[in-house]
Amino acid sequence: MGKITFKLEGGGESTIFATPGETLLGLARKANVAIDAPCSGNLSCGKCKVQLLSGSSDSQKTIHIDNAQWDAGWRLACACSVEGDAEILVPDVASAYRSRMKVSDLSSPDELAVFNSLQASMEEAGLTKESGIFSLPVRMDAPTPDDTMPDIERIARAVRGATGAGKVTLTYFALKQLPNLLRANNFALRCICERREDTVEILHLLPIADTHPVCGLAVDIGTTSVSGLLVDMESGKILSKASAGNGQIRYGADVIHRIVEQQKPGGIDQLQKSIIEETILPLIDLLCAGAAIPKGRIYRMTVASNTTMNHLLLGVDANALRMEPFIPAFFHIDAIPARDLGIELAPSAMIKISPNIGSYVGGDITAGALAGMIWNRRELSLFIDLGTNGEIVFGNKEFLVACACSAGPAFEGGDISCGMRAIDGAIEGCVIDKETTEPSFSVIGGEKPVGLCGSGIIDVTAELFRTGIINGKGKFIRDGARVKFDEFGIGSFTLAFAEESATGREIVINEVDIDNFIRAKGAIFSAILTLLGSLGFSPSDVRHVDVAGGIGSGINIRNAIGIGMFPDLPLNKYRFIGNSSLAGAYAMLVSKAAEEQLLKLSKAMTYMELSVEPGYMDSFVAACFLPHTDERLFPSAKTL
Amino acid sequence: MGKITFKLEGGGESTIFATPGETLLGLARKANVAIDAPCSGNLSCGKCKVQLLSGSSDSQKTIHIDNAQWDAGWRLACACSVEGDAEILVPDVASAYRSRMKVSDLSSPDELAVFNSLQASMEEAGLTKESGIFSLPVRMDAPTPDDTMPDIERIARAVRGATGAGKVTLTYFALKQLPNLLRANNFALRCICERREDTVEILHLLPIADTHPVCGLAVDIGTTSVSGLLVDMESGKILSKASAGNGQIRYGADVIHRIVEQQKPGGIDQLQKSIIEETILPLIDLLCAGAAIPKGRIYRMTVASNTTMNHLLLGVDANALRMEPFIPAFFHIDAIPARDLGIELAPSAMIKISPNIGSYVGGDITAGALAGMIWNRRELSLFIDLGTNGEIVFGNKEFLVACACSAGPAFEGGDISCGMRAIDGAIEGCVIDKETTEPSFSVIGGEKPVGLCGSGIIDVTAELFRTGIINGKGKFIRDGARVKFDEFGIGSFTLAFAEESATGREIVINEVDIDNFIRAKGAIFSAILTLLGSLGFSPSDVRHVDVAGGIGSGINIRNAIGIGMFPDLPLNKYRFIGNSSLAGAYAMLVSKAAEEQLLKLSKAMTYMELSVEPGYMDSFVAACFLPHTDERLFPSAKTL
Repeated sequence: MGKITFKLEGGGESTIFATPGETLLGLARKANVAIDAPCSGNLSCGKCKVQLLSGSSDSQKTIHIDNAQWDAGWRLACACSVEGDAEILVPDVASAYRSRMKVSDLSSPDELAVFNSLQASMEEAGLTKESGIFSLPVRMDAPTPDDTMPDIERIARAVRGATGAGKVTLTYFALKQLPNLLRANNFALRCICERREDTVEILHLLPIADTHPVCGLAVDIGTTSVSGLLVDMESGKILSKASAGNGQIRYGADVIHRIVEQQKPGGIDQLQKSIIEETILPLIDLLCAGAAIPKGRIYRMTVASNTTMNHLLLGVDANALRMEPFIPAFFHIDAIPARDLGIELAPSAMIKISPNIGSYVGGDITAGALAGMIWNRRELSLFIDLGTNGEIVFGNKEFLVACACSAGPAFEGGDISCGMRAIDGAIEGCVIDKETTEPSFSVIGGEKPVGLCGSGIIDVTAELFRTGIINGKGKFIRDGARVKFDEFGIGSFTLAFAEESATGREIVINEVDIDNFIRAKGAIFSAILTLLGSLGFSPSDVRHVDVAGGIGSGINIRNAIGIGMFPDLPLNKYRFIGNSSLAGAYAMLVSKAAEEQLLKLSKAMTYMELSVEPGYMDSFVAACFLPHTDERLFPSAKTL
Repeated sequence: MGKITFKLEGGGESTIFATPGETLLGLARKANVAIDAPCSGNLSCGKCKVQLLSGSSDSQKTIHIDNAQWDAGWRLACACSVEGDAEILVPDVASAYRSRMKVSDLSSPDELAVFNSLQASMEEAGLTKESGIFSLPVRMDAPTPDDTMPDIERIARAVRGATGAGKVTLTYFALKQLPNLLRANNFALRCICERREDTVEILHLLPIADTHPVCGLAVDIGTTSVSGLLVDMESGKILSKASAGNGQIRYGADVIHRIVEQQKPGGIDQLQKSIIEETILPLIDLLCAGAAIPKGRIYRMTVASNTTMNHLLLGVDANALRMEPFIPAFFHIDAIPARDLGIELAPSAMIKISPNIGSYVGGDITAGALAGMIWNRRELSLFIDLGTNGEIVFGNKEFLVACACSAGPAFEGGDISCGMRAIDGAIEGCVIDKETTEPSFSVIGGEKPVGLCGSGIIDVTAELFRTGIINGKGKFIRDGARVKFDEFGIGSFTLAFAEESATGREIVINEVDIDNFIRAKGAIFSAILTLLGSLGFSPSDVRHVDVAGGIGSGINIRNAIGIGMFPDLPLNKYRFIGNSSLAGAYAMLVSKAAEEQLLKLSKAMTYMELSVEPGYMDSFVAACFLPHTDERLFPSAKTL
């Protein structure tokens, strides 16, 4: 047994004894050492690099490690075991997550465009902005020997008078504040109240002069990315917006890996801790700092997330989700006190979770469909959400059918060696000159590029294909200044040379990346085709396509069609609606009517299990080609 | 500034610097050192003894310290300051509290007599034993590809089928158990449910074979003593019964001292911690150990306590209770999750608190009046609760009026130098031979005596008076083998010589003790007279008198009349109903109808503030005499 010492770049070390053949990734997990491993050890993401400081290793060289790195002792932890004692340097994952956190600049016109348009369509659909939570200043008479009613009845009388409520109650936390606060403020207080039918509950008490807004929190928990909004619940105004990587990513990039991980002893707690303590709590801190609002003024939190993510958020065993017959623990659940999850907001803050409709169509999709307004149209519409899972909803006012496909994390920059989320430095658009093969980019933030986000990958793939640099199988077939082939004959395209990039390192996309991406886009297209076909429809019956996802500020639909990801429909039928899951969580936060509509919509939505649908696998295989093995499906591809 | 080191008998030490003149009791509180001080420093209880190990003190010698103790350095912490550095030995208060804890022997016929008679009268009054919490075994079909409903809907369907409930919900904690437990038990579970109108909520899930009863906890929190019952909520059976001293006693013996103490910085938290962590949690452990039931099977807790005690239990500032115009924060409050108070029972266990009706008539009295059934009689009745406060309720089916008087802790053995709670070793009855002045006792547990409980003090006082050993003022006027006078001329009576007592120390009652007790009994009698008089009634109008209190297994009514504590009515009008506050908490626990009746009764009860009642003080002064300064009120006293 060798003694393995993990030295953490962020400080500290951890020692564990290894039996021969154990991978460093496995050992690190046993030793509770965090290593970034989105592909969970299938050698595809290249993100679990560690450096062997001493000792000898048995490792496989992969495309993710160049010769200089190899010589310096860098290895993929998932592909490396050591013999005898060894010292291993582990890069600071926490800092990587911190650096991936981002507060949005709300002064940028793009940032709030989706929400402004959402507010307009909510109004149109009759979903009034009325959350039920409101602030109420009340002035009471001080007690006298002739008026000795208890404090609680005094304040209830005042609130009843001001609101017309039949019954007024007070939370335990407000009760604890009551006697002191009343007397310190001459019996004039600001009550934060929640109305539920005929009852008003006093959630919190403040001095009457307190001017902080009554806040709520909308959170979209994706498998790869998490986004949040801090909202003034009375006006609906967005006070701050931020995003972060999902801390669970070190347990695997997709939901299946996460579920496998949570099956291990203590695994559920670990995954729950990871999403809450490593991701949501820092995100909340960021949102609150961004708007200068104390956490204690957040009175409600809404969450939109896929079925696995909401199970793991609650620490509910998700194993039955991945085993035939794929059973979730819940679709809809009542609100849960935030503090039961270790999320300290206002003491009585409740978390409401957007309902799931199937094991692989979760609250992110129902929330997204709510925000996309597909339920409010007469014409047949398609709603496509590009996340780690791709989900498709088809229908109109009369019916809604949904399905999911496993696209992998490519749309969020995972499984792509130079991939990243759609934050500053991400290439989000690309054109390649057919003559010179020189690329030009649009980069988020406008500076030099760092990597490639989802919309960028679509453009790069489409452009490499259009310019004949790669063929329909995604293999490199044309030489050029930026095209290289390694010792295994695997081709790659240098998007940015070292001096062109923000990091001083080359940004390269290779055949493995392109192959991962082709499978992702093939999964989406074949899911659309199978869903429509099973109901007797074809793409030409579709009148509207809403495309959602946190893949960038937009998506080049022409390119997405060009590579065979979306049906070949006129461009004006498409609309990019951004992160619709977050938009739905926002709607649910500020509007009780929207919350009710969401529940109604989720009950009406039918779930189709693609994996048991005959023909889906054949359709998927046929779609793993640029644009498609059946060119007739993409007549306009030739005109690119 | 002297350096004072408190050496704790239980282990550990604590150092603090003293300015000249500070008492050791004050310093100990600052240093967070627990010293038992029920009288809170008024030199009357003699319980704050500490030993000066080194250093010199400035102290007053009191009757509580004999010469041998004085020479050994024992001092009353409340009456002692030190000069320069000093080391102080502090007896282990925690162990004193532990030793004061007691589990009842339920096989003794006395122990459950009160509850058996209560159950009969509950039945008579139509208060059915139906708590709303019940256990339900359910067997479900396992999911199949054709039956893929989520776990939560599967179990809800089964519970709906079995109960006919319109709606079935599940707590978050039960949800967390659900997927694993279902699959580990072949979809057969035992659900612990709570019915609320048309809704059934699943609180907890267990394997179907689990046979633990569904338990509840009834607790009476007195200022001096705390008692609890562990109850099978489905059958109403009492599984264990225990009592303890209220840990807050070191902050003062009565509610006023406690409120003064909670006003200090951090005081509310400290007093709340003291009642919960030092008293209730160990009591629950004791109750559970006694019945071999895990705490996690307790699904509800009911509390009956006076207004100050329930404010402090909840950590709610009680200061306005002691200041004109005497305003409580609440009378009635909704159920509170037990875990919000740091009381870990079943995760969803709620605490229900018996409602107060005034600042000095609390939930102990409304619960006691419920159990005494005064609200269900046509004839005029009196309900008298002997605790640290004495409370009186007068009325019938038509009206109820209540008042409180500050009797001090004498009825629970406080403020009496040889006093103790009614546990093993307590003298609970006494006869003194008029000729020889030799006493004979009945002692709880039947062994040698340790001290004197409430019923014993009544008897001893009555017998000392009857035998002419003391006069109407409580002064010693007759010699005898057991009568002594100290250097100040203060008389005392040796109830047990060293060899007659269980501790090997004399048990002595002195004039200070008797004086404290006469004031206690005077407070009770004058309160009764004032209450009746203010409504235009006199004692002869009363048809029933229920006497309650944890003062022993019974009370010699003849003696209580003989000393002028109760009105001179025929003995058969009196009934001793024991700890009626605990009985009321029990009724509230096992019967929803009783809980509703309690609320109704509390709303109907009128509170009379004695302190503003003209004539009360005169009446009190007149009653501080044996039996009374107006002998005409006690014609039968002469026949004793």
